[in-house]
Amino acid sequence: MNKPLIFITNDDGIRAKGIGQLIEMLRPLGDLLVIAPDGPRSGNSNALSMENPVVYTLQRQEPGLTIYSCSGTPTDCAKLAFYIGDHHPDFFFSGINHGPNTAINVIYSGTMGAVFEGCVRRVPSVGFSLCDHHADADFSACLPLFEQIARKVMAEGLPQGVCLNVNAPRGALNGVRICRQADGYWDEEFAFGVSPMGKHYGWTTGYFVCREPSAPDTDISAIGSGFVSVVPTRVDMTAHDTLSTLADYEAIR
Amino acid sequence: MNKPLIFITNDDGIRAKGIGQLIEMLRPLGDLLVIAPDGPRSGNSNALSMENPVVYTLQRQEPGLTIYSCSGTPTDCAKLAFYIGDHHPDFFFSGINHGPNTAINVIYSGTMGAVFEGCVRRVPSVGFSLCDHHADADFSACLPLFEQIARKVMAEGLPQGVCLNVNAPRGALNGVRICRQADGYWDEEFAFGVSPMGKHYGWTTGYFVCREPSAPDTDISAIGSGFVSVVPTRVDMTAHDTLSTLADYEAIR
Repeated sequence: MNKPLIFITNDDGIRAKGIGQLIEMLRPLGDLLVIAPDGPRSGNSNALSMENPVVYTLQRQEPGLTIYSCSGTPTDCAKLAFYIGDHHPDFFFSGINHGPNTAINVIYSGTMGAVFEGCVRRVPSVGFSLCDHHADADFSACLPLFEQIARKVMAEGLPQGVCLNVNAPRGALNGVRICRQADGYWDEEFAFGVSPMGKHYGWTTGYFVCREPSAPDTDISAIGSGFVSVVPTRVDMTAHDTLSTLADYEAIR
Repeated sequence: MNKPLIFITNDDGIRAKGIGQLIEMLRPLGDLLVIAPDGPRSGNSNALSMENPVVYTLQRQEPGLTIYSCSGTPTDCAKLAFYIGDHHPDFFFSGINHGPNTAINVIYSGTMGAVFEGCVRRVPSVGFSLCDHHADADFSACLPLFEQIARKVMAEGLPQGVCLNVNAPRGALNGVRICRQADGYWDEEFAFGVSPMGKHYGWTTGYFVCREPSAPDTDISAIGSGFVSVVPTRVDMTAHDTLSTLADYEAIR
């Protein structure tokens, strides 16, 4: 039987420690196709390159492992995965991200942007993140649990249209929690200044505000209690429960 | 009583016809704060600038209308709206986009990326799109219906955590439909080539494949029948219906 083809990408770039750890973790589980950005693309969300071509360059090819770097976004990398290889990938894994993709971060995350591409194409897809932004973050505690999650997804698949957003806190772990995305937002999001040429600018910063810090069933709560959070996630953003509430818009002519 | 403060942005850039039409449409309804990208940002999704500062430049200031251009993404523009003015905007309107943001396009759309920023901050927010990519697209048929939608949102607000993704087909319109995001994906997404310097590249192209062309309750169906589609949309991407299905992940230690 052929080994499964596993696609790997991230948003911290091909040289980040996290993607190296993910490649090592998944190497025994299949043939790996890695297409990752040539530099940092954090906060790239589901952005795709429309104004410029996406350049991809073979970096390494050996039995079971092919690595490309790419000038584009994580979404560009993920889309390329369906056209560069001999056949479509069987599984998509993205990360391991340096920093959390919990709560509202899911919509800004390039790591999860790539995961959504797999999900949209009905490929079982998982994003892994560690809540530690440091370039030399220690992945040793989360790797055994991430590997079990990956093996389970590869053995069982996922519900149709669903991908996983997996986050681990730093340090020792108490286990895994299936949970929902917490409600919150970022505040004080810019450091403002004036450039030497007199241009006004803001530079991204800020802090996350959780609107429901005591809710026990959120990813923020799981992380706070030392658990790996697993949020089943869909690209259908429809607020289905409000379809009938808003029916009177249909009176507009 | 003070006029409401209405924030306006788009992803086609400050010089696009669509945002000019939106400004004209909303001018009688409040004081307008426009912060829009200084060039095209289609496909920018919820991307935010992290590697570079976001430069914003006052272009025009007169009673009831302030316009800035911005070096960043639509999301950057939308985030700036909470810090540049005297107070938070009361309403967010984005567009009018040149081209559809129906179905899966909602996750790639810079127009909707900006709308989500308002939604996350509990500001009633709407993205308007016309299914016509031409720079000189004719907005005359959709404007009266878009204006009525804007007035209704401003009068009644929206359900908590919900924003609207509004799309109009080209030509004469039959009315408005409240609907859900259709299931589909893009295929044949790259024109591949080799640059003069020998670099392999792919340039974004492709076509949308709807997985449920005969479902009557989707945005794709509404557009196909000559209706304006209104999809109530949430930033909570949790697949709530699968939380119990996946509970056995909690056995992982």
